[in-house]
Amino acid sequence: MQYAQLDIADLEREMATLAQRYSAVSDSNLSLDLTRGKPAPEQLDLSNALDGILEGDYVSPSGIDARNYGDLRGLPEARELGAEILGLPAERIIAAGPSSLTLMYQVMDAAYHYGLSGPSWAGEAPVKAICPVPGYDRHFTLTESFGIEMTNVPMTASGPDMDRVEALVESDPCVKCIWCVPKYSNPSGCVYSPETVGRIASLANRASAGFMVFWDNAYAVHDFEFPPAVLDDVLARAEACGNGDNVVLFGSTSKITFAGGGISFVAGSPATLDKLEARLSVMLIGHDKVNQLRHARFLGGRVEAHMRAHADLVRPKFEAVDRILHASLDGLGIAEWSRPRGGYFIVLETIPGLAAEVVNLAGRAGVRLTPAGATHPYGRDPDDRTIRLAPTFASLGEVEAATEVLALCIRLASARRIRADRDT
Amino acid sequence: MQYAQLDIADLEREMATLAQRYSAVSDSNLSLDLTRGKPAPEQLDLSNALDGILEGDYVSPSGIDARNYGDLRGLPEARELGAEILGLPAERIIAAGPSSLTLMYQVMDAAYHYGLSGPSWAGEAPVKAICPVPGYDRHFTLTESFGIEMTNVPMTASGPDMDRVEALVESDPCVKCIWCVPKYSNPSGCVYSPETVGRIASLANRASAGFMVFWDNAYAVHDFEFPPAVLDDVLARAEACGNGDNVVLFGSTSKITFAGGGISFVAGSPATLDKLEARLSVMLIGHDKVNQLRHARFLGGRVEAHMRAHADLVRPKFEAVDRILHASLDGLGIAEWSRPRGGYFIVLETIPGLAAEVVNLAGRAGVRLTPAGATHPYGRDPDDRTIRLAPTFASLGEVEAATEVLALCIRLASARRIRADRDT
Repeated sequence: MQYAQLDIADLEREMATLAQRYSAVSDSNLSLDLTRGKPAPEQLDLSNALDGILEGDYVSPSGIDARNYGDLRGLPEARELGAEILGLPAERIIAAGPSSLTLMYQVMDAAYHYGLSGPSWAGEAPVKAICPVPGYDRHFTLTESFGIEMTNVPMTASGPDMDRVEALVESDPCVKCIWCVPKYSNPSGCVYSPETVGRIASLANRASAGFMVFWDNAYAVHDFEFPPAVLDDVLARAEACGNGDNVVLFGSTSKITFAGGGISFVAGSPATLDKLEARLSVMLIGHDKVNQLRHARFLGGRVEAHMRAHADLVRPKFEAVDRILHASLDGLGIAEWSRPRGGYFIVLETIPGLAAEVVNLAGRAGVRLTPAGATHPYGRDPDDRTIRLAPTFASLGEVEAATEVLALCIRLASARRIRADRDT
Repeated sequence: MQYAQLDIADLEREMATLAQRYSAVSDSNLSLDLTRGKPAPEQLDLSNALDGILEGDYVSPSGIDARNYGDLRGLPEARELGAEILGLPAERIIAAGPSSLTLMYQVMDAAYHYGLSGPSWAGEAPVKAICPVPGYDRHFTLTESFGIEMTNVPMTASGPDMDRVEALVESDPCVKCIWCVPKYSNPSGCVYSPETVGRIASLANRASAGFMVFWDNAYAVHDFEFPPAVLDDVLARAEACGNGDNVVLFGSTSKITFAGGGISFVAGSPATLDKLEARLSVMLIGHDKVNQLRHARFLGGRVEAHMRAHADLVRPKFEAVDRILHASLDGLGIAEWSRPRGGYFIVLETIPGLAAEVVNLAGRAGVRLTPAGATHPYGRDPDDRTIRLAPTFASLGEVEAATEVLALCIRLASARRIRADRDT
């Protein structure tokens, strides 16, 4: 029965039971962590063959000595791998160093100080970014570092609320960009629908000059089910409506091979790649092509097989979270959560005003969760109800134990709040 | 006999002989390249053991799984390697990704937009940088990309002309930084004297707030002779006079292991490293620690032995250049060149106004040289006399052939110029 429909006596009985269980859990010295989207050691083991895979042959099939300087667009074979991962033509892709976040910084730096699809943003005051929420905290930190104002737009099951996005872009010429994690979105796990992708591709038609879509396709191949969910090709759709220069796409092997030790990709129109290469040439003589060659040899042509092995390790953890939350919370009317078909995160929504309290309760019971608010710009979730769960790094047993504690904390915090509300 | 002292008849005879030889060389379809400071394949072969050196063990002696995110200061073992290369305490060093040029960009970005040792430079107009010339073209390109004005200061055999540097810093508060390649300077090959290092370390005492010394110690261990030349510790000397926050140091293994596939280092005071780590955290979750671990395993404790093997490959090429220039140009009074004890470059000075002409002549004869002017900000050598030679990448035979052609072109251009001057 829904907590909200319990009478006060039943609520207080429930509170007493939960408080007793919480006290017992707190005494059991748990130390569990669901904070960050890191691959588990067993996932990393899947790529241990990377080191040594070259067997002394450092020359690419295309004839480039990977050990020397040059080739700012990356090895052809690494660009082909990017094409396989991102579903784009290789000539639209630059294969780069280990961090797509660094590429995002460099692209925003280029748009802000030098201009990408239009004049530089630096002259504008203020510059504004649309941030679908819940979203990825590192996008927000990066954006804030440029002094750019962030405007929240709610996520739906099919992507950002596009009516709101279009209205913002049309009404305010200071709006210069939107952040998107279009497949298995961080943290909700939703996949943008074809309609949403199409509307995003045409945003520049409504926006002021220099508008950019930052398309962080971090989980492009991180599927749990096969055949996997399909994401529409935003670059092709943008090019079809004359906006090819207004979309920049990002990808990475950080959660395919080694986290921080892989290679990354940036993609866009020919004009965008020319401008990015010119910017890169200021700060770089060439990417680490040795690691690009390793990745091309290791992954080229077998990305899906590799990701199936990841799925076998990751899916059970997501299923465990869902199973335990269902068993503990079904029918109580106090929480909703996502059931992604891929990616790295689950988003959970408490009743309003309880997320920070649940995270605190869990922390005191030995279960570390991502700080409440981290899913929103400036660390402020206006409804204080969003919690991001990252089940990949912990072992399956730890995920189960942590989720049991989380469910308990949600029940305890919710019962207390509902009981307190009866008095007001 | 010096060309300037030949009578017109002798000069014209010389010109005729040289023109005949030049014509013969031009017909011989040479294709030689002394343009860039790239390691030769045999040098790269010295590090072929890097790939595979981990033998499946990705955990550092310090207990860090190199395959996962984190550790923005780098693996402790990689910082120790930086200490061995740069002669600094490991705790003053961040071990980073493959490119020290990227670190330089990030440091200048930090100083310019956010402030490092003082307020950000962005409010100042104009911001000025002191560029000892001849210098490194990529420093100039990077500096120019921020809209910073570059002021030339001549190099001497012991480093920049410090009287000029100090006068500039004292007289103009817009001067915010100086670029230094202190050991085997690019391109002269000189090593800054202890007196010069001391005066640079104390520059901030004379300069406006936020002044920075960018100390690009790219050739710290790239010696041809052992025991090698010793460079004074600028950071210790700066700290001794209260200027520790005003010096940032850079290093890299790009010309130790793989060019663009190694690891890089940035070093400075504790306050500087805190600020840089905060900046890096905006754009990066962690460096490629797998490659850091490879480098620590491969090079740790044996840097000098490895560099001796490089020296055995590189020294003969430098000696060949010097030998051929001596044999061809001694006593003619038309060129001077450096005889570095390490590094990657030789600088050659023609009589004024001839560098571009010599580079053109050589190019038409099939010998590509770094464009004249590249050693100076904005690509403008005001005396048009500086030519940078990069003898490492070509084979010894190619270096010999290219230097013969170069010497011929210098003689031909000089004889023509001196002859023409007789008529005016």
